[in-house]
Amino acid sequence: MTATATTASDTAAAIAALRAATEAALEAALPPETAWPETIHRAVRYSLFAGGKRIRPVLVLAAGEAVGAERTGLLPLACAVEMIHTYSLIHDDLPAMDDDDLRRGKPTSHKVFGEAIAILAGDALLTHAFQLLVSVPAAADETLVRRRLAASALVAEACGTGGLIGGQVMDLESEGRVIDAAALEQLHRAKTGALLAACVRAGAILGGAPPDELQSLSRYAAAIGLAFQVVDDVLDATENAERLGKTAGKDASAHKATYVSVHGIERARAMAEGLLRDALAALAPLGQRAALLQALARLIVERHS
Amino acid sequence: MTATATTASDTAAAIAALRAATEAALEAALPPETAWPETIHRAVRYSLFAGGKRIRPVLVLAAGEAVGAERTGLLPLACAVEMIHTYSLIHDDLPAMDDDDLRRGKPTSHKVFGEAIAILAGDALLTHAFQLLVSVPAAADETLVRRRLAASALVAEACGTGGLIGGQVMDLESEGRVIDAAALEQLHRAKTGALLAACVRAGAILGGAPPDELQSLSRYAAAIGLAFQVVDDVLDATENAERLGKTAGKDASAHKATYVSVHGIERARAMAEGLLRDALAALAPLGQRAALLQALARLIVERHS
Repeated sequence: MTATATTASDTAAAIAALRAATEAALEAALPPETAWPETIHRAVRYSLFAGGKRIRPVLVLAAGEAVGAERTGLLPLACAVEMIHTYSLIHDDLPAMDDDDLRRGKPTSHKVFGEAIAILAGDALLTHAFQLLVSVPAAADETLVRRRLAASALVAEACGTGGLIGGQVMDLESEGRVIDAAALEQLHRAKTGALLAACVRAGAILGGAPPDELQSLSRYAAAIGLAFQVVDDVLDATENAERLGKTAGKDASAHKATYVSVHGIERARAMAEGLLRDALAALAPLGQRAALLQALARLIVERHS
Repeated sequence: MTATATTASDTAAAIAALRAATEAALEAALPPETAWPETIHRAVRYSLFAGGKRIRPVLVLAAGEAVGAERTGLLPLACAVEMIHTYSLIHDDLPAMDDDDLRRGKPTSHKVFGEAIAILAGDALLTHAFQLLVSVPAAADETLVRRRLAASALVAEACGTGGLIGGQVMDLESEGRVIDAAALEQLHRAKTGALLAACVRAGAILGGAPPDELQSLSRYAAAIGLAFQVVDDVLDATENAERLGKTAGKDASAHKATYVSVHGIERARAMAEGLLRDALAALAPLGQRAALLQALARLIVERHS
């Protein structure tokens, strides 16, 4: 199964294979639950293997393979972005932040392990992600070493105060306040879009994408990064907690600005469709090699939970 | 002023110069307080510039210069370890962890900015540290790139669940319980010793130390890493809050196992002296090039606050 799969069922099987490769690599990348000190490893694994859809690592692998890279070389980056995503969820769910009791249908980390261990489990996942990124085999050639550094720098930037962390700060600060459409877009480009976009771009850089293809993939990445959040807001407003696996309607009850509260549900849906068209158009120059990335964009916009 | 300074006042001036270089590099490495979103940059700078003694970056610079490296190439690593140290203090002080109100004589981050921003400020410092480590100028040659990766991997390992984070977990879990001398040493080798030792070793690796010198410096690093914590425990038991800049006697009131509670104050002092002798003996093969590292070991063991 390769990135040039053509039929819908081939594509679905190819995505399933990328997910399975991610699961196996994550399993191997972490100390076992029995490693000292056990509590932290139990907490790390509890959240990392809580049934996440692995969208970010799959984007890394699909982007890297679209430009011709081998999967093995992409897997440490794929694991790192999933660890970073999981750290951000654990910290966002804390009582001092969004105070969420449910995540992916299961009690959140701090509900199970207490706040102290939840904070440290997030810290551990972020640290482990960077440890993976900087652990390059001595036998790796210079080109690979430099690509790994460039991809890592991109991911680090996306996680910083101009990305993931900045977006969460803005999210906290805008709670209960009216923010306009431009501020809402800035918030989500930082909080969700930056890391999603970095997955695609870092995968492409690690895979050795030429500049024109990197540019196409960056356009694709920006569009799906934002689409993801628009769809999230639509789902929060329309689905129930059981399907969502987390507390539904929470945005409205917290008076959070969302694409639905700012633009209304129909316009939010239309925005997601428009972003999907942008994403697909950006992939055109890659032709059939981008089949999986096309399917992933559709999966993100057309998902139901 | 170089690492070969010989008189006591030369040594003191050389250490002051390393501190000043660190301050300037830290200042330049972070976004200004006015960068979006301002709150997080204010919180990050509040803790990073709260009057820390910069022991870890000074160790990086002194170790790197002892093996002949230029200061400029060592500064990103020096800044990174101080950011990591500061992140760990912010998170350790949180209400869910050690619940400390004072740090270096000032209110802790969560007292000033609230818990959510304090958690995110810690996350931001950890992220920024790794961003610095993986940001290698394109003009850097292959040897330097590989050394940077090796040094970064060492630092990442020291921050992980086998180091900094594991030590904090063990510290939380041993509160109010009796632990023996072996467990106490395991705790502090992880919580304090691992990062201190990584500073010396990573500085030496980045500086291109040959294997025998790296081995000497590793022995030195292990001894001062542990000595630091023994002295900390002695100070907590003997100094008052004003000199200490943080809540004194807190270990005893929290029924924490410390070198003082396990071994008694006289034996703890003797241990610190013994570790100092080990550290100085380990430096012997480096001769006069290790003058600053010798002075730093004395500074760590003979400090009063």
